[in-house]
Amino acid sequence: MYIYPRIYRKLKRGPQVILPKDIGMIIAYSGVDKNSVCIDAGTGSGWLAVSLARIAKHVYSYDLRPEFTAIAEKNREMLGLDNLTLITGDAFKKMGQSDADLVALDMPSSEKALKNAKKALKQGGTVVGYLPHTEQVKKFALKLESLGFMDIYTIETIVRDMLVRREGVRPSTKGIWHTAYLVFAHKP
Amino acid sequence: MYIYPRIYRKLKRGPQVILPKDIGMIIAYSGVDKNSVCIDAGTGSGWLAVSLARIAKHVYSYDLRPEFTAIAEKNREMLGLDNLTLITGDAFKKMGQSDADLVALDMPSSEKALKNAKKALKQGGTVVGYLPHTEQVKKFALKLESLGFMDIYTIETIVRDMLVRREGVRPSTKGIWHTAYLVFAHKP
Amino acid sequence: MYIYPRIYRKLKRGPQVILPKDIGMIIAYSGVDKNSVCIDAGTGSGWLAVSLARIAKHVYSYDLRPEFTAIAEKNREMLGLDNLTLITGDAFKKMGQSDADLVALDMPSSEKALKNAKKALKQGGTVVGYLPHTEQVKKFALKLESLGFMDIYTIETIVRDMLVRREGVRPSTKGIWHTAYLVFAHKP
Amino acid sequence: MYIYPRIYRKLKRGPQVILPKDIGMIIAYSGVDKNSVCIDAGTGSGWLAVSLARIAKHVYSYDLRPEFTAIAEKNREMLGLDNLTLITGDAFKKMGQSDADLVALDMPSSEKALKNAKKALKQGGTVVGYLPHTEQVKKFALKLESLGFMDIYTIETIVRDMLVRREGVRPSTKGIWHTAYLVFAHKP
Repeated sequence: MYIYPRIYRKLKRGPQVILPKDIGMIIAYSGVDKNSVCIDAGTGSGWLAVSLARIAKHVYSYDLRPEFTAIAEKNREMLGLDNLTLITGDAFKKMGQSDADLVALDMPSSEKALKNAKKALKQGGTVVGYLPHTEQVKKFALKLESLGFMDIYTIETIVRDMLVRREGVRPSTKGIWHTAYLVFAHKP
Repeated sequence: MYIYPRIYRKLKRGPQVILPKDIGMIIAYSGVDKNSVCIDAGTGSGWLAVSLARIAKHVYSYDLRPEFTAIAEKNREMLGLDNLTLITGDAFKKMGQSDADLVALDMPSSEKALKNAKKALKQGGTVVGYLPHTEQVKKFALKLESLGFMDIYTIETIVRDMLVRREGVRPSTKGIWHTAYLVFAHKP
Repeated sequence: MYIYPRIYRKLKRGPQVILPKDIGMIIAYSGVDKNSVCIDAGTGSGWLAVSLARIAKHVYSYDLRPEFTAIAEKNREMLGLDNLTLITGDAFKKMGQSDADLVALDMPSSEKALKNAKKALKQGGTVVGYLPHTEQVKKFALKLESLGFMDIYTIETIVRDMLVRREGVRPSTKGIWHTAYLVFAHKP
Repeated sequence: MYIYPRIYRKLKRGPQVILPKDIGMIIAYSGVDKNSVCIDAGTGSGWLAVSLARIAKHVYSYDLRPEFTAIAEKNREMLGLDNLTLITGDAFKKMGQSDADLVALDMPSSEKALKNAKKALKQGGTVVGYLPHTEQVKKFALKLESLGFMDIYTIETIVRDMLVRREGVRPSTKGIWHTAYLVFAHKP
């Protein structure tokens, strides 16, 4: 069983969300703070977007599909966030920002958005790809390399629930083994 | 090899630090945001304290040992944080706050600080213990239960570095398998 | 999903069995070969007993509960093994052998059978405990130490299924995280 | 730290060996027993070959490089095995057997030996590839499919050492995270 932190339990969700375990790594490894401007594409159910908006100065989140922007809008309202701009639009074509500290990509063929991501990032900014398959990881990392990104590294985060009882401390029998790899890099 | 996110590479460290993987989980699972007041004990090298201060409204960090407060003070200065109060003092005896959103405990016998932690937390606030051993986890969780904390759960976070190359995508051969378990609970 | 090797798919099973992943480790770490005499208690569904009997010279398997001996007997017959002796009896009270290469224990409080296990083992023989909980692991390991066993070590074996497709190689989303720890030791 | 079972501690080794954790899985998942004929290519230091020979009726092990056959020969002698035939030869060109229960492949481009492996196997026999990289896993699995092998599945085996002490049961801090994936299939 994967245990959801309380804040996520009330959020609405579409078919797939980025889990808190991966959200935590994106925050810790990118170093997002209260002064950060973040971009997120695609929005999906907006779990990453709202999580970043609770911390950062401003978050811009792109998705082509208005039905997902609508779910994310509900989550934005529920948490009372006024620093999250949800945009129904194509992140492959255009990201309107140029001073971002973080661009997080979770789309099919998201390596195709890396050129735009580079333009949108400030110097030293972080890009991260959320990529379920090893082939996607390779494509993404090689594209980062060819675009001159630096300090490229890839992690997989596994969270294991423990059973803790008066007698019988042990890991849970079953659990989530894999969601996606995270590939990080920095704009030089 | 465990890869450190860039922000942590310049930080000073004593013999042991809480790694970014665990910091990320503490942030994501506690739901700390810009309005949060956090308490941290013991400070150690201050990696968790500065990470929280980059996000939260204010962080109070306690350690009995002035040599650790000094390391943390260097890290606080390096990051230019003015919302982190480092206190050389005994968190078992006293935490001077009463409206905290998060109390994070990383001390020997930290279950003995849970009574104080409960007083320091606001309603609905989160306590988290960073506990290397299974025996500590059990003691901590049972003490949480006896003090009436709710929604107690324990996780272990494993971050696996991947080798990503033009030919040869695979997990790293060696890595860090274990730092500590995290036990979370909420004040009712 | 945990994939069963073909040979195990046709075997009968009661409520719980030792999985092939743990059976493989018991074989590889004990060094059981065609000349080995093995003891197994409790029999349970007999999966470990029949797996050992397919390799070893002779296997003696003890269980107090005749309904389990009966399941194991079906599995013995199905595989046509004539070197497996199934005994409905109490391994805490008596193991009738004295030249065993391996004693494998999977019972509640199996540390209480270690004194008998030591008598049943030949010099240099291996004992292994199959223990789901960390508290059991500690009790078992400390008892081994107090009885003068040597070279005590504990492992946990995790088998991760991979999805392999024309496009989309990645670990399975869900899986079995934990069955039991294995504690090995040798009779000096 | 990866703990070697006692039997492996005295064996000679070249630059790389198949570890007992993977040997255990090959044995348990293939169902090798005393009546089995096994083929192994390449021999390397012969750790898999001798492990199989301790269990099976006969093992044939191929390696192109005579320096490796020599290491394996030392290991064969040390264990007194007379049912292991070490062959300095090219498994891509020829395997002289036709009734094998198991063919285990650990070579660069080992998918190129699968056609020969199929000829060497008896009906229902098992082939297993030991493959460090995800790309190799895919190539191997797709080749198995195109050759009509059945019941193809891929696993990764992780063995985690535990520290067990009077006070302080927990997983080891560091360890081996990855050796290779194992791809299994059966000849129809």
